[in-house]
Amino acid sequence: MSIRIGILGYGNLGRGVECAIRQNPDMELKAVFTRRNPEAVKILTNTAKVCPVESIEDWKENLDVLIICGGSATDLPVQTPKYAELFHVIDSFDTHAKIPEHFEAVDAAAKKSGKTAVISVGWDPGMFSLNRMYANAILPQGKDYTFWGRGVSQGHSDAVRRISGVKDAKQYTIPVERALTSVRAGENPDLTTREKHTRECFVVLEEGADPAKVEEAIKTMPNYFADYDTTVHFITEEEMIRDHSRIPHGGFVLRSGVTGWEGENHHLIEYSLKLDSNPEFTSSVLVAYARAAYRLAQEGMSGCKTVFDIPPAYLSAKSGEELRASLL
Amino acid sequence: MSIRIGILGYGNLGRGVECAIRQNPDMELKAVFTRRNPEAVKILTNTAKVCPVESIEDWKENLDVLIICGGSATDLPVQTPKYAELFHVIDSFDTHAKIPEHFEAVDAAAKKSGKTAVISVGWDPGMFSLNRMYANAILPQGKDYTFWGRGVSQGHSDAVRRISGVKDAKQYTIPVERALTSVRAGENPDLTTREKHTRECFVVLEEGADPAKVEEAIKTMPNYFADYDTTVHFITEEEMIRDHSRIPHGGFVLRSGVTGWEGENHHLIEYSLKLDSNPEFTSSVLVAYARAAYRLAQEGMSGCKTVFDIPPAYLSAKSGEELRASLL
Repeated sequence: MSIRIGILGYGNLGRGVECAIRQNPDMELKAVFTRRNPEAVKILTNTAKVCPVESIEDWKENLDVLIICGGSATDLPVQTPKYAELFHVIDSFDTHAKIPEHFEAVDAAAKKSGKTAVISVGWDPGMFSLNRMYANAILPQGKDYTFWGRGVSQGHSDAVRRISGVKDAKQYTIPVERALTSVRAGENPDLTTREKHTRECFVVLEEGADPAKVEEAIKTMPNYFADYDTTVHFITEEEMIRDHSRIPHGGFVLRSGVTGWEGENHHLIEYSLKLDSNPEFTSSVLVAYARAAYRLAQEGMSGCKTVFDIPPAYLSAKSGEELRASLL
Repeated sequence: MSIRIGILGYGNLGRGVECAIRQNPDMELKAVFTRRNPEAVKILTNTAKVCPVESIEDWKENLDVLIICGGSATDLPVQTPKYAELFHVIDSFDTHAKIPEHFEAVDAAAKKSGKTAVISVGWDPGMFSLNRMYANAILPQGKDYTFWGRGVSQGHSDAVRRISGVKDAKQYTIPVERALTSVRAGENPDLTTREKHTRECFVVLEEGADPAKVEEAIKTMPNYFADYDTTVHFITEEEMIRDHSRIPHGGFVLRSGVTGWEGENHHLIEYSLKLDSNPEFTSSVLVAYARAAYRLAQEGMSGCKTVFDIPPAYLSAKSGEELRASLL
């Protein structure tokens, strides 16, 4: 029998989850829940239903795991604790600073209902966190570095779009090659914000807007751009659609450390991702952890977990025996 | 109270474990057990004892975890099941093809005694296996690649040393850059043995030995060298000591896969290690998993586990709360 999955929210992430489920024969998408008019939401899976979110309680006995695909700013802090009262749930909450409080809220709800919850699943937080954690445990004497990109930052793209005179914009975060080279060489550099990443913006202007003014407004924007070296390119709407419709991302997690009685030997652990589609990769991680959530639930576990708490084998459809024989 | 560790076998690996314990304030080395005359074994830790292996049973109540640092060919298949009768144990058994039978033997012994055992801990098997497994679970449609090096292969160095006329030898395994580039480009190449790695040998000849004959013997050696492009350098004993005394290693684990409804988006997951000291890095992984073994034992777990079965957080000295706040 397959693991029966529900998706709450059908944006890029929800659609990615739908695609990922198709790659996992032990899982089945049963329903997509939406706040929009269900008639207007066209999904890809013929055998699944689109339902209004108000009807979700009717599915209480018919879903094994609910994958919550809302945004971290306002959706997930409400949705994940709320639906943990009804379902085993999983989300990709990614506001790093607020993870502890989100964890507490979801943990309390899930413990009360006897459900399993897994939060902050994806690649950062998620696979990057795991790699930081493993590397720290293995090399206690060392230094961590995380670089992001080359990839589209939704937050920074939105910030540019809010500037008067900007019709559309995409912002790419780019790791500085020189910094990466220094870390890889074991130089353990102390890097400023500017030394780690550059930012590149592609902007479509409203008719009559002044490019010099827009460029100045971008480059001096506090928090988002002022501390970075930023390049701005003005392009046409056609070029935007043709060259910047994808949502690639990626990055690097490195730990540079030493071993030996006097720290005489150096080691470098590096993990990197090059992703054509940020939301689809995040979705693929979510679906693997949905399998883990299902198994934890089968064992009667209740409360909230993160990627740190879950045995790797729980993510795989293969048995322990198969895994030991083929991948160990 | 610290986790009390015993080391069985004091070669490069045992010494590496001793050094790694020093970096972990929650652990304490209590004793090193040796088959040699204990008087002849000088260790670095003043507060630990060197004992004959015959006396190990006297330590039954005084060690939390025994880290077994023997070789995979003949030591570990005997030692790990044997000492799992007395202690919570951990080893770095690395003969991939024999892991399933080693697992069964250790699991049976540990279940009988009610002890916790963890086998095949290190980087391959170990961290590389984990990365293969995570990447497979996340990207079910994809292809795996593992490259080793640049690093010293003990087995290949030994094979060269057994050739008549060879006084000393070191063999380096080197990944082929062209193959790595192709994998990273998402080309999903089918690679032959020769296309993945080259081999480089540094050889000190016995007086009067014929270099041409030795080179021929190396390059045509079945299994070890015949299927590879091999370079042979003849050097002096002084050069061997000066330039080839370290035991570096490393490698790359990659998974190239696709997501999307029609597999339209490509993703690359890459994990790599650059290690100055192969045994010291392996030891550092062993010590982190010794902490995990201790915790599993505290929970009353008995039987054999591998890296696939152990929640990542069990490796870290930090609490779940600290980990979520600092590394997630």
